[in-house]
Amino acid sequence: MSIVVMKFGGSSLATADKIRAAAARAIAAHKKGKQVVMVVSAMGDSTDHLVDLANQVSKDPPKRELDQLLATGEQVSISLMAMALENMGVNAISFTAAQIGMLTDDVHTKARIKSINVKRINEQLDQGRIVVVAGFQGVTSDGAITTLGRGGSNVTLVAIAAALGAECENFTDVDGIFTSDPRIVPNARKINSISYEEMLELASLGANVLHNRAVEFAKKYNVAIHVRNSNNNRKGTMIVAESQDMERIVVSGAALKDKLAGVTLRGVSNRPGIAAEIFHTLAKAKVVIDDIVQTIADDRTANISFTVDLGELNDAKKVVEGLSKKIGCQVVYEDHLAKVSIVGVGMRVHTGVAERMFSALAEAKINIHKITTSEIKISCFIDREKGKEALRLVHDAFNLGGKKSAGK
Amino acid sequence: MSIVVMKFGGSSLATADKIRAAAARAIAAHKKGKQVVMVVSAMGDSTDHLVDLANQVSKDPPKRELDQLLATGEQVSISLMAMALENMGVNAISFTAAQIGMLTDDVHTKARIKSINVKRINEQLDQGRIVVVAGFQGVTSDGAITTLGRGGSNVTLVAIAAALGAECENFTDVDGIFTSDPRIVPNARKINSISYEEMLELASLGANVLHNRAVEFAKKYNVAIHVRNSNNNRKGTMIVAESQDMERIVVSGAALKDKLAGVTLRGVSNRPGIAAEIFHTLAKAKVVIDDIVQTIADDRTANISFTVDLGELNDAKKVVEGLSKKIGCQVVYEDHLAKVSIVGVGMRVHTGVAERMFSALAEAKINIHKITTSEIKISCFIDREKGKEALRLVHDAFNLGGKKSAGK
Repeated sequence: MSIVVMKFGGSSLATADKIRAAAARAIAAHKKGKQVVMVVSAMGDSTDHLVDLANQVSKDPPKRELDQLLATGEQVSISLMAMALENMGVNAISFTAAQIGMLTDDVHTKARIKSINVKRINEQLDQGRIVVVAGFQGVTSDGAITTLGRGGSNVTLVAIAAALGAECENFTDVDGIFTSDPRIVPNARKINSISYEEMLELASLGANVLHNRAVEFAKKYNVAIHVRNSNNNRKGTMIVAESQDMERIVVSGAALKDKLAGVTLRGVSNRPGIAAEIFHTLAKAKVVIDDIVQTIADDRTANISFTVDLGELNDAKKVVEGLSKKIGCQVVYEDHLAKVSIVGVGMRVHTGVAERMFSALAEAKINIHKITTSEIKISCFIDREKGKEALRLVHDAFNLGGKKSAGK
Repeated sequence: MSIVVMKFGGSSLATADKIRAAAARAIAAHKKGKQVVMVVSAMGDSTDHLVDLANQVSKDPPKRELDQLLATGEQVSISLMAMALENMGVNAISFTAAQIGMLTDDVHTKARIKSINVKRINEQLDQGRIVVVAGFQGVTSDGAITTLGRGGSNVTLVAIAAALGAECENFTDVDGIFTSDPRIVPNARKINSISYEEMLELASLGANVLHNRAVEFAKKYNVAIHVRNSNNNRKGTMIVAESQDMERIVVSGAALKDKLAGVTLRGVSNRPGIAAEIFHTLAKAKVVIDDIVQTIADDRTANISFTVDLGELNDAKKVVEGLSKKIGCQVVYEDHLAKVSIVGVGMRVHTGVAERMFSALAEAKINIHKITTSEIKISCFIDREKGKEALRLVHDAFNLGGKKSAGK
């Protein structure tokens, strides 16, 4: 009998009605003859409420205790979901991570899964029950409760699907992964299938559906994730291993990251270890870096440029002022940047992709401040006020929009 | 090093400030050189909130899932308490029942403790930590979470104190156990020490501080419970094994149970099994009986009388109408009763106790409808409107009040 693991996020569980709707979806699959495991997050904004409680008693709560606290959010969801399922006439049982032996390391608040014992899940499935598992949490060999960090419930989903050899459905409040943000690009089109690698690039560029850790996990265990809408029955987006077929599509999606700031250190003495020194100092000050570009200025000096979220610029400035005095260089700040990017495994085998992107921007007289590329991604930094226009132009340049596109 | 187990109920943990106040109390004991274990309930009315959530998804939630849900309330408290303690500079660690192996049977929502493994608690105490344990919950050998039913947190308190051979402090919002309800009897006096048996009788008569299961547990393992006020440092009431000294005090306390109704079956054919039949039928209909009195009416018939909470009278009537037709007897209902009682181990060795109580009531022209007694208790049923007056009279008749009393 085939098994499906369905994950529902907090917004799909925010009220009793939504819990019942998610239960109904699981029951529908169960009635079609599937064995069903549900992975659930904490209800709505209940995690925020717990964090708020913690902050009321401690500014810097011990991480073990924070995990002990936060894990209650999912425990509430699993028990309510099991109650709803039983109330709707299907036998169900809920499990915390500890109860199914979802073993992790002991790095509290961002633990990594070490092993899962699916024996208890299988026993319950074989008795005809729907099994409801708490996402986001784990347990150490010592019995301490851990949490898996951002995107943790999706990691639980993929880990359980991998361990059970099951189908994997991730229910959200959108229809799937889109070629671009539909709020900015009206003709953005739902992608039918996308490779893990493309998904990883898009997520890091701001596509907010699935956290990279879950995608990496899925890639590692080759689990196909079906991202779909909990409010309808439409097919969503399959996140799968790259296929030859995919290379026919040059570009899968385009993304915009807004509110960026650039810092350029000019005329840095180009000796070994200088970049390491700069970014070590920034990391120590907990400044999160977006992109880094280094170019040669002349024989002995380089320009080193990096981007940060606009909100981090002041923190970065403090570090850079000291650095520039120490290593002797000029600094230029740009507080008005946006980054438009295209992603696609096809660009590895197609030529002229970068040129087509740059031309689209040039025709609209949009100036490019910086460029960075990876094997399957090209990013251009431009003035923020041109960001949305640039995204639409690039999206059109690669025929990503609905109807115009060949589809994928 | 001596160990103290301190229990804080939900009202002592309702806000962050109250959690810090409870933490401060534990730290004070810790600084005096004691090893400290805290047993905590769910915050304020959070359990009600969880029950409300359950009722939104199911009218009759499976008990295993209800336990899985309710246990989160105490888990929130333990983690917040540990955070508060750490924030105030003392090392602390929280444990759920599962994490310390508080094994129970699998009777969900009213599980009984089978064993406790205090190894983990002792390890942590020996490392100088304050250990915070979730009250009210347990775990089956199968890993399912159970709850201990009403008064469950106090059962946890006593069980852990017994297992550790520790002192046992139960913090509430009153100064201890009183000779009577101070809201009705203004000169009611705090009792310094009271026997388990007296406490059991008083609790069943309406004294609301400690549930009988905890007292029975304490009696079984001979754990002295110190009931005291979390808002001050006064000595409270010690609940202890009976001592010879106690017998010098004739009566320890007086209690009033209000809003009772009486049902009398008159002229019941007095054959073996008739009482069993009557009360089996009532039990099947889930009518909770307070007291039962049977007297002989004539050679062949008896009068069987019982008391119920006024709110149960309609349910009782439905059962009794059918019964009276079946067994052929008259029925009299009284919907205006109250019960005033005195409790004391001393009455076993002193004479004239009942007479003194009856005289006190007679002098005030209060008519006694029914009388029941146990070895250490005498109860009189009277008109409800006379209830409070009767309680004050009886309290005075045995010199229970402050100053007038010799103390105990």
